[in-house]
Amino acid sequence: MDSQDNKTIGKIGRYQFLAEPFHCDYSGRLFMGHLGNHLLNAADFHSTDRGFGMRYLMKAKRAWVLSRLAIEMEEMPFQYTPFTVETWVEGAMRYFTQRNFAVSGKDEQGNQKIYGYGRSIWAMIDVDNRQPTDILAVNDGAIQQWIETEKECPIDKGGRVKMTNQAQYVRTIDTYYNDVDINGHVNSVKYIEHVLDLWPIDWYRTHRIKRFEIAYVAEAHAGDKLSFYRENGADENEFCIRICKDDGIEVCRSKVKFVKD
Amino acid sequence: MDSQDNKTIGKIGRYQFLAEPFHCDYSGRLFMGHLGNHLLNAADFHSTDRGFGMRYLMKAKRAWVLSRLAIEMEEMPFQYTPFTVETWVEGAMRYFTQRNFAVSGKDEQGNQKIYGYGRSIWAMIDVDNRQPTDILAVNDGAIQQWIETEKECPIDKGGRVKMTNQAQYVRTIDTYYNDVDINGHVNSVKYIEHVLDLWPIDWYRTHRIKRFEIAYVAEAHAGDKLSFYRENGADENEFCIRICKDDGIEVCRSKVKFVKD
Repeated sequence: MDSQDNKTIGKIGRYQFLAEPFHCDYSGRLFMGHLGNHLLNAADFHSTDRGFGMRYLMKAKRAWVLSRLAIEMEEMPFQYTPFTVETWVEGAMRYFTQRNFAVSGKDEQGNQKIYGYGRSIWAMIDVDNRQPTDILAVNDGAIQQWIETEKECPIDKGGRVKMTNQAQYVRTIDTYYNDVDINGHVNSVKYIEHVLDLWPIDWYRTHRIKRFEIAYVAEAHAGDKLSFYRENGADENEFCIRICKDDGIEVCRSKVKFVKD
Repeated sequence: MDSQDNKTIGKIGRYQFLAEPFHCDYSGRLFMGHLGNHLLNAADFHSTDRGFGMRYLMKAKRAWVLSRLAIEMEEMPFQYTPFTVETWVEGAMRYFTQRNFAVSGKDEQGNQKIYGYGRSIWAMIDVDNRQPTDILAVNDGAIQQWIETEKECPIDKGGRVKMTNQAQYVRTIDTYYNDVDINGHVNSVKYIEHVLDLWPIDWYRTHRIKRFEIAYVAEAHAGDKLSFYRENGADENEFCIRICKDDGIEVCRSKVKFVKD
């Protein structure tokens, strides 16, 4: 469970989490997928606390849809470590909002320590026709009062992941009951896991994920087969990944930058 | 994150959780795998708070190993619902302890509501040779002062899942980076997900999991292929499952009882 630190509501939300043991990998570090889940929860708590969360929007037949997520980490929290996710809205336009994240904790001396940062882009859809709708039309543009422009998020904004026709087919997986969320779509967090499962555990023994980026392009449903294609990016530790459904339609694109440990 | 309610330490630990949206299935109910994770966290917090947790035991080169877990639910918490997991040790013998769980929350009138119960059996191993060790030898049998005999856990204890040679092969899956925990073994929670993925989402539209039972028999590692065999149990809504590694060695056995919705 996640609880909010600050009962006075400012522009920045702060939420406490714990690197739970079953959410940590072979090295005892939090899995990127679980960190992604914590960021999405923080986003949801932050927007709910400020009157533009999912539960409020459902009444207005609107929903937030995650369009892109980028996470860049200096270090991943070690198991049993408490950490804080700060989140704030950097900007809101008619069809997109930019929401940032900072992940921090304490070092052994009790000093503030930054684990990393995240950036995300969200659209708002009409839940009936699933088309984008005007974010600024909700509550007379109430979201604009929450825009935080001072807090820094010193990581690259990212952008469209460029892929060529050189991408190599890696594998096809089935999607099952546990992959699917309440909307009947393959859950955003599960894509992160499936992408990172493309590398064997031995790769992770010598490489750490420095930056993970994912763009959600189309929706997949339970039972859809997902095919993964991969090619090198700027160097031998950067990879671009395309995920397609059976019919060849692209559902996600991702970029992963590793550093050698 | 999970926080403890009661700062005075009694025999029963109480921990608050939230049915997080990405931890809920297509119907908005908490996934059994995530509930299992919450129970295991509650067990860990409870034993840590009382001086016999994993972190303490690591210093003594000992570790708890989950041997069996049974969960029986009247209802699963709906998304965004806070709920409480109570846990206590029902009994401790030389080689096994029995730990129980109660999952509760509030109904719409604010009255206490029981979601369900769990039972688990744990062994303690020597982390060097991975052999069972004497639980009562730790801290002069300190665990015995925590045994709670009054609190009821009104679900069947379960036992060995009986399988015949009629079990049908269902599928073989690969195990990847995200399946593996800090010990290098396939994570106990992931087995729950893999078992429940044996049924298509359409089955879940008309059937609810009433009881889930799993016995951990042997360890699997990243890269092991897991094969699933299934047969009917006592009736058409009860199933027994065997999971084997490539070499045919059985790693888990599970029993799932559904009820028609």
